[in-house]
Amino acid sequence: MSSAVSPLAPTDVPDMPAIAGVKLATAAAGIRYEGRTDVLLAVLDCGTTVAGVFTKSKCASAPVDWCRAKLSRGKARALVVNSGNANAFTGKTGRQATALTAEIAGKALGCSPAEVFLASTGVIGEPLDATKFNRVLGTMAQQADPGEWISAAKAIMTTDTFPKVATATVKLGKAEVTINGMAKGAGMIAPDMATMLAFVFTDAPIAAGALQSLLKGGVEDTFNAVTIDGDTSTSDTLLAFATGAAAANGAPKISRASDPRLKAFNAAFRGVLADLAEQVARDGEGARKLVEIIVEGATSKNSARKIAMSVANSPLVKTAIGGEDANWGRVVMAVGKAGQPANRDKLSISFNGIRVAKSGARDPSYDEAAVSAAMKNQKIQIRIALGLGKGRDRVLSCDLTKEYIAINGDYRS
Amino acid sequence: MSSAVSPLAPTDVPDMPAIAGVKLATAAAGIRYEGRTDVLLAVLDCGTTVAGVFTKSKCASAPVDWCRAKLSRGKARALVVNSGNANAFTGKTGRQATALTAEIAGKALGCSPAEVFLASTGVIGEPLDATKFNRVLGTMAQQADPGEWISAAKAIMTTDTFPKVATATVKLGKAEVTINGMAKGAGMIAPDMATMLAFVFTDAPIAAGALQSLLKGGVEDTFNAVTIDGDTSTSDTLLAFATGAAAANGAPKISRASDPRLKAFNAAFRGVLADLAEQVARDGEGARKLVEIIVEGATSKNSARKIAMSVANSPLVKTAIGGEDANWGRVVMAVGKAGQPANRDKLSISFNGIRVAKSGARDPSYDEAAVSAAMKNQKIQIRIALGLGKGRDRVLSCDLTKEYIAINGDYRS
Repeated sequence: MSSAVSPLAPTDVPDMPAIAGVKLATAAAGIRYEGRTDVLLAVLDCGTTVAGVFTKSKCASAPVDWCRAKLSRGKARALVVNSGNANAFTGKTGRQATALTAEIAGKALGCSPAEVFLASTGVIGEPLDATKFNRVLGTMAQQADPGEWISAAKAIMTTDTFPKVATATVKLGKAEVTINGMAKGAGMIAPDMATMLAFVFTDAPIAAGALQSLLKGGVEDTFNAVTIDGDTSTSDTLLAFATGAAAANGAPKISRASDPRLKAFNAAFRGVLADLAEQVARDGEGARKLVEIIVEGATSKNSARKIAMSVANSPLVKTAIGGEDANWGRVVMAVGKAGQPANRDKLSISFNGIRVAKSGARDPSYDEAAVSAAMKNQKIQIRIALGLGKGRDRVLSCDLTKEYIAINGDYRS
Repeated sequence: MSSAVSPLAPTDVPDMPAIAGVKLATAAAGIRYEGRTDVLLAVLDCGTTVAGVFTKSKCASAPVDWCRAKLSRGKARALVVNSGNANAFTGKTGRQATALTAEIAGKALGCSPAEVFLASTGVIGEPLDATKFNRVLGTMAQQADPGEWISAAKAIMTTDTFPKVATATVKLGKAEVTINGMAKGAGMIAPDMATMLAFVFTDAPIAAGALQSLLKGGVEDTFNAVTIDGDTSTSDTLLAFATGAAAANGAPKISRASDPRLKAFNAAFRGVLADLAEQVARDGEGARKLVEIIVEGATSKNSARKIAMSVANSPLVKTAIGGEDANWGRVVMAVGKAGQPANRDKLSISFNGIRVAKSGARDPSYDEAAVSAAMKNQKIQIRIALGLGKGRDRVLSCDLTKEYIAINGDYRS
């Protein structure tokens, strides 16, 4: 595991305000890692609604199955997250482990196990010993505190090199409401829903169905538009919780996502998702460059997304960027292999604003020295203009370095 | 560029017999590389038929466009291949370069430019100066010789660490016919037709339409079942040439691919394609392990292929194999992300014959020491049983190492 913090880490960590109705606690249950916290408990007030989106993997983890089954009730009293063991591909044992974890948490908090949401991240295929939660969850329930956001984000890390948090404050009606979020990466990251684990909390009074619509709408251009290695986890989970506590300050109760009073809230909510998603890209395993791929002029947004993802996931494009080489020939290759409408002779490509290819050939005014200098930036923007239609999309990714190989060549052993 | 020969290189290089009607010559035209040959000319007797399959890239190279346009005539008198420059994404200049190359070759051989087939491999987006062929093709045409198979295979190499050739001799009717092939890899290799450049020659008298059917049928489980990095080249070209010279020895003239007399020939032909395709996998950039992925029990062969490719192209699976880690959790992940029918609780996975996962959980009899020992082999077979149907497929690939990053992080610069 890498110990150095990613050079792409944000320089400012926001002050995370409390959210009325949310208390957090962390502990070291000794699931896998030595000398660090590996369990997060979020205690949620009565009346908290919940929404979630999950991996589309056909081999989803036991906690994903658990959350999906409980989501229709729309009510949550607790979230329990552990790092170090994904409780995925663990068969009947895995199902028993989720049930036992929820039971222990329910007992500690005096709520139904069905109101306990679960997420696990770490190695796949190892049985998770849920009895370890027995020793810690009771104490955690008593010690939970509204101010533990950074330590919470740290407890859910695996190969992440920095904790990922984001916050926003926005008006809902005449009341001020807060949105806090946290996420973890950093490998096995490709969007097929949201990617990895992320949890967003608000005190806004939003019904579960409306919250679900906001979440589904928000994930498409945030978590689903990030890829590190094209590998989709069995455990990808994004949960949103709304305690409703701001109703006491006069925030209106929202029952439909189409409610016009949600406009500013929705924008702030998406901002938090986008911020967290970008931090995941900035902490991609071994990443030294943040890569933004913009595809324009495609026949549709969906087509633009597929082309952008083909470029973002191409090992040859990613290694070239790692080598600070504006190898637009590899970008052409990746556009070509996407299987989407593209006309070679209309294609233009820019790196960090410098056009290198135009109308299917090298741009005659292409200045190699200027491009080489631009490639030394920490952020590389590749803009691809297809010249076919109005479809546009944007995807975030990172470069592929020897450090990725080092991290993943001996992660489990 | 790596200089050491791949540890996976075949230990025996076959003696390549002459093929009546085929003469070969190589030269150093100075296109990109210093001190090595970079042009291959194959001179083909009158009456040679030709078939071809090409990249499905939407941004195909100029030589691919050229070959596609000329293929319908079914006749070939020459093949000109250069390494060092792919003549891809070179616009009008690229089209002019192909026409000029064919014209120079046609003049040297006294044939129509439309009977000259072309392939280029190397950097994308740089104009190819075809006038350089002017200096060499005339002499090459005079010096062409039936015995130059190994030097021909060397002239078309880019990052390959060894030349790739294969041969077979088989009865057609009562006559003996020969099939010789050569190929080059070694990166930007993912099948979407055949991958990279490969050329197969025979003296069998087979009509162009029948040869095309044989080639299309043969490519599916050979070149199309190999992937190095999931990146599909703009230049992928597989051409087959049949001189028909064996008719003089009594070989029957074959006009339809369904002709029963072709049975043994077709098997030998596929054998040559399979041999070359495996050599491409064995020379994947930075490869230290040959990886064979077998998927069984899928709902169809097509579904099995998609799952096998998802595993073969997963950076996390490939880095784990490089690290000699039987990380079957990552195999589960890659099966799950393929989007194909799969039931987690019916899934079984073996590494080199040792079952590690069964019915959606770790195999209770799983012996970690035995698996760890098996992972030290040069060849790693991953067998995935889905338990859903009768669909089966096999794909060849290699591991992902730091050497791949080194080769591709500074290939162009």
